Amino acid sequence: MINKQLLQPESIVVIGASNDIKKPGGNMLKNIISGGFKGELNVINPKEEKVQHIKSYTSVHEIPKTDLAILAIPAKYCPETIKILAEEKNTKAFIIISAGFAEAGEEGKMWEQEIEKTVNSVDGCLIGPNCIGVITKNYKGVFTAPVPPFQPKGCDLISGSGATAVFIMEAGMALGVSFANVFSTGNAAQTSAEDILEYMDLHFDPEVDPLVKLLYLETISDPEKLLKHASSLIKKGAKIAAIKAGSTAEGSRAATSHTGAIASSDMTVRALFNKAGIVYCSSREQLLSVAAIFNYKKLQGKNIAIITHAGGSAVMLADQLSKGGLKVPEIAGPDADKLKSFLYPGSSIANPIDFLATGTAEQLGIIIDYCEHKFDHIDAMVVVFGSAGLFDVENVYNVLSVKLEICNKPIFPVLPSVVNAQREIQSFLKKGHIHFPDEVVLGKALAQVFNTPEPMPEEISVLEIDTKKIRNVIDSASEGYLSTSQTVDLLDAARIPRVLEIVENSKEKLFAAMGTMDFPVVMKVVGPLHKSDAMGVVMNIANKEEAAETFDILMNIESTTAIMVQPQLVGLELFVGVIKETGFKHTILCGLGGIFIEVLNDVSAGLSPISKSEAKEMVHSLRGYQLIQGARGKKGANEAIFIEIIQRLSALVEAAPEILEMDINPLIGTQRAITAVDARIRIGK
Amino acid sequence: MINKQLLQPESIVVIGASNDIKKPGGNMLKNIISGGFKGELNVINPKEEKVQHIKSYTSVHEIPKTDLAILAIPAKYCPETIKILAEEKNTKAFIIISAGFAEAGEEGKMWEQEIEKTVNSVDGCLIGPNCIGVITKNYKGVFTAPVPPFQPKGCDLISGSGATAVFIMEAGMALGVSFANVFSTGNAAQTSAEDILEYMDLHFDPEVDPLVKLLYLETISDPEKLLKHASSLIKKGAKIAAIKAGSTAEGSRAATSHTGAIASSDMTVRALFNKAGIVYCSSREQLLSVAAIFNYKKLQGKNIAIITHAGGSAVMLADQLSKGGLKVPEIAGPDADKLKSFLYPGSSIANPIDFLATGTAEQLGIIIDYCEHKFDHIDAMVVVFGSAGLFDVENVYNVLSVKLEICNKPIFPVLPSVVNAQREIQSFLKKGHIHFPDEVVLGKALAQVFNTPEPMPEEISVLEIDTKKIRNVIDSASEGYLSTSQTVDLLDAARIPRVLEIVENSKEKLFAAMGTMDFPVVMKVVGPLHKSDAMGVVMNIANKEEAAETFDILMNIESTTAIMVQPQLVGLELFVGVIKETGFKHTILCGLGGIFIEVLNDVSAGLSPISKSEAKEMVHSLRGYQLIQGARGKKGANEAIFIEIIQRLSALVEAAPEILEMDINPLIGTQRAITAVDARIRIGK
Repeated sequence: MINKQLLQPESIVVIGASNDIKKPGGNMLKNIISGGFKGELNVINPKEEKVQHIKSYTSVHEIPKTDLAILAIPAKYCPETIKILAEEKNTKAFIIISAGFAEAGEEGKMWEQEIEKTVNSVDGCLIGPNCIGVITKNYKGVFTAPVPPFQPKGCDLISGSGATAVFIMEAGMALGVSFANVFSTGNAAQTSAEDILEYMDLHFDPEVDPLVKLLYLETISDPEKLLKHASSLIKKGAKIAAIKAGSTAEGSRAATSHTGAIASSDMTVRALFNKAGIVYCSSREQLLSVAAIFNYKKLQGKNIAIITHAGGSAVMLADQLSKGGLKVPEIAGPDADKLKSFLYPGSSIANPIDFLATGTAEQLGIIIDYCEHKFDHIDAMVVVFGSAGLFDVENVYNVLSVKLEICNKPIFPVLPSVVNAQREIQSFLKKGHIHFPDEVVLGKALAQVFNTPEPMPEEISVLEIDTKKIRNVIDSASEGYLSTSQTVDLLDAARIPRVLEIVENSKEKLFAAMGTMDFPVVMKVVGPLHKSDAMGVVMNIANKEEAAETFDILMNIESTTAIMVQPQLVGLELFVGVIKETGFKHTILCGLGGIFIEVLNDVSAGLSPISKSEAKEMVHSLRGYQLIQGARGKKGANEAIFIEIIQRLSALVEAAPEILEMDINPLIGTQRAITAVDARIRIGK
Repeated sequence: MINKQLLQPESIVVIGASNDIKKPGGNMLKNIISGGFKGELNVINPKEEKVQHIKSYTSVHEIPKTDLAILAIPAKYCPETIKILAEEKNTKAFIIISAGFAEAGEEGKMWEQEIEKTVNSVDGCLIGPNCIGVITKNYKGVFTAPVPPFQPKGCDLISGSGATAVFIMEAGMALGVSFANVFSTGNAAQTSAEDILEYMDLHFDPEVDPLVKLLYLETISDPEKLLKHASSLIKKGAKIAAIKAGSTAEGSRAATSHTGAIASSDMTVRALFNKAGIVYCSSREQLLSVAAIFNYKKLQGKNIAIITHAGGSAVMLADQLSKGGLKVPEIAGPDADKLKSFLYPGSSIANPIDFLATGTAEQLGIIIDYCEHKFDHIDAMVVVFGSAGLFDVENVYNVLSVKLEICNKPIFPVLPSVVNAQREIQSFLKKGHIHFPDEVVLGKALAQVFNTPEPMPEEISVLEIDTKKIRNVIDSASEGYLSTSQTVDLLDAARIPRVLEIVENSKEKLFAAMGTMDFPVVMKVVGPLHKSDAMGVVMNIANKEEAAETFDILMNIESTTAIMVQPQLVGLELFVGVIKETGFKHTILCGLGGIFIEVLNDVSAGLSPISKSEAKEMVHSLRGYQLIQGARGKKGANEAIFIEIIQRLSALVEAAPEILEMDINPLIGTQRAITAVDARIRIGK
């Protein structure tokens, strides 16, 4: 677990440090020294008296007490070394950069477990093994380059992959993204990204701490911890963007061979991120674009003004913003006319605001002032300004730089002239700004940020249901699929309306029970698991004679023990369901039934417990949502009831976490009611 | 029209040249001089005797005969100057970089038209006005920077926007993309991108000419010319990628205000690009990624090996390739085991091939050799190799460089260490290679290239239909919607099967005509345009009594002149349609009917004339295609007949280009037949 000794050690020992800075142990020491670590620094290297001018001990027994040990020695020597440090040297923090542990085989796994046990026994913190290390305000404990200068309000970076952390820092620095704390978790024997977020959350001070957190994850071992602390951090003012790599079958196989990651479906991960308010990213480029957006003022609405001297970029950006659900609204009226009078003839102010290739820095300043103060419907500005090589654009970028600081509306600078204006861009970045080289890449990331919901409240009260009855059914049931009567009992206890069902094994009792039930009816076999496959469902039974005939036929199907009769409902087919992935809370699914699931895969997902607003959002995000509203002259289904059923399903799995899989398919919806017609539940114990 | 005088002028005059290289006329002259133009170079500037050491004439009358004139003088002086050049100086090529023409107002438009007329009268070529100029092998006729060195096998770039051309060159040069001819078309008063492609096509020599053509378009004024010459070039070995900006309503508005672009729908543009084999791009970044892919060997299949020392990038890339329809297939077997024996313990060869952070240049060479020679199911390799800052990766990039040249399978190099390995990347680029900084951006572009179809053959023979009858109907019809009988005649002439229809205005005649028609039937009003809105369609009429009653009700609806009866067909609802956009051939649409069009917008488009393989591709690309095949226990519809109907519709509009809009909705499909139930046709004359 993260502790003070890891973050602010008063003393560090580098074990396996070398004079050869091409070796990890050598480069690690070099970075700590040149990073200006102010505490006591020692080294263990039995072959040297001094390493990089630092006193070197020959054995771990000889060193003074030390807060933090960084190990760059072969894996097999680590367990014993750490035992001595923990027990004799009061060491509470350990970073193991060496590889050769769990990722290499059984023996390594054993070493890793032994080390974890030792570290836990002294309430210590272990980072790695198999990682590049840690950068904090106090020391630069990584063996890689580049080592970005610590910027107190830069981005915190937590990465499961060391090389990916390096590549993210490299690409980020080129854009002007600055970094603060960097944690590479490697095999995460003890400390995972979730643990680091937890520490950040519990100790968060928005005045002092970095606000932007970037994550690269290949596995989410404790989704609930991630959810809890990510959403808590975001509510306190932090902003989080994350890549969860391995979202496809092929990527997942790649991740498993890379860090032994446990697969989780992309749908569930997205549901988790949405609930937490984490912006979902799928590339380094996108992660850094989002990070750059996070570093500017918050986008408060969807109306963007595009300000440029280069029409083509504006057109491509307008296309992209529009595809992402943002708007480039027209600008018109007396203020717009006034603005136009300050610009050269031929300029366009309709939005995009194109002030021509000859546009000046002063004009840019005036345009931004108008967008900031006069055009109330504008929420943010994108300024695309490059250089065709004729003028120096430094004065333009100076104006932009000042406006970035003083305007309340966010301004996103796209500086495309990476060759012509290289020098001016560098001087712009040196002022602490970040630039976007490609307008369309920015446009996509803006939509990704804008479309990520706010984090859900931590306490979501689920609807009241008959928990006692649910526990009775679950506690007395055995693993696997529940029986029809158990299933019915759970639906009733969760107060999910279901179709009237009569189950009997004799024709006489059946007809007696049916009483005045309206025809047509549906008859189904009871017994066989896959009713449809067994040809055990007959629809459109129009009268008693047909029912009698059908009864005889169905009773002859193998494993059939009884026959169920239901009135045949007419309405819109809907679907709700549940899946449970290892470590995650239940994922609740909803959709339109039939082809929408089976052919179009049009399903929304949310992580239980589901609030009313989440359920609503799930329903609204269905591609076929119009059909629920009523489209093509048909009446749709009662949305409020559908939302309530989703919440009830969530309440059910909260009361019965043993449910591993559940489908209610179909539900038949009308404007007045939604009724479950068939359901299937599988539990595990 | 492009001519020899534009491409290989023996003499150039720059009119409005200046000693001030911050002025367009000054910078243009500087670029021509420093670009090493070998012909005769003159200048007109009444105020100077010499401009940049070049003899300056005071008036256009004084200069000797000149092939190419470049004008950097105010718009209003251009018409007269060009007249003198054309008539007295035998000038056949003109580049006007000045603005202030059609984009500025009526007067400018007049000047532009006058100039075009003059140039056409001498069979000359006019580029611009309002452009940055032209770069060819022979001269650097642009006033902007950077001026990329002419690489005979670099990319040709044609851009409607000058600034966008500059930004594309800048971003491209940073990646190692090289350029050959550059044309900025500006207002395209005479010469458009299509005209330039036409010239390139007619004079194409694959041995000598650049193979890669990049286009940035805001308008397609002659879609047929674009289609003809783009597909012809691609068939001869060229590769074309294009951005058509203004694909959304907001982007289109932006484009209109930028260059007066005429809007065309994204669907139609995509249909055109698909037919031509042009790779559709929507950002500068994507255009350049595709250009970079074009510069490597051709991807012949979908199976990619990912070779890396950095697992995280491999996971993200595997995800992206898989989302784009490409594969990262497993590698296993005796050869794989042998390969593994050459790598360090802990390496993974299952694909991704991860040879660890300590992996060497020699190992990379061996891995590539195995992928090239031993793993037959691998079609291409992506090598992701950066630097954590410990080692020099120059030797790795040297191996990569050699393999890029000698391997038959394409290898795409992702070099993510833009900071640590900046020097090594630069030296890699100097060898003439191109690199990809982000693996996911490459992955997306690879899919975009792979999923672009081959160009269609130029001659597509449409199905035989009754053209004479069609011409009779069309020639005798007036503008607007056709009558029911005209519509029926066209369907019959096109041999599109339609439902039996009986139209009568008396009950007795109707019943007589119906004869033994099976119930249920549908009855519709004849007269009102929107039958459904007028409540003029009644379904499920079960017998003669109901039919009689319905007849009376329907005849009372306003504008109703008769009643139509059809048998009520049961099957899968399908849809075909036509739209005609200005300048384009007809866009043929197909889809599943009902919610698939109205709610899900699941429609495929192709540009007429449609070949059988195109029609097939259109049907296959529907999201709901499974329903045509038969899904959920239902039988689907006859795909071969559906494809034929799409071809027949195409044949119909080829015979009747006056059709502006047409829907056949629904068609009812079964496994044996597909029958048009309702159709609507609008023509223009």
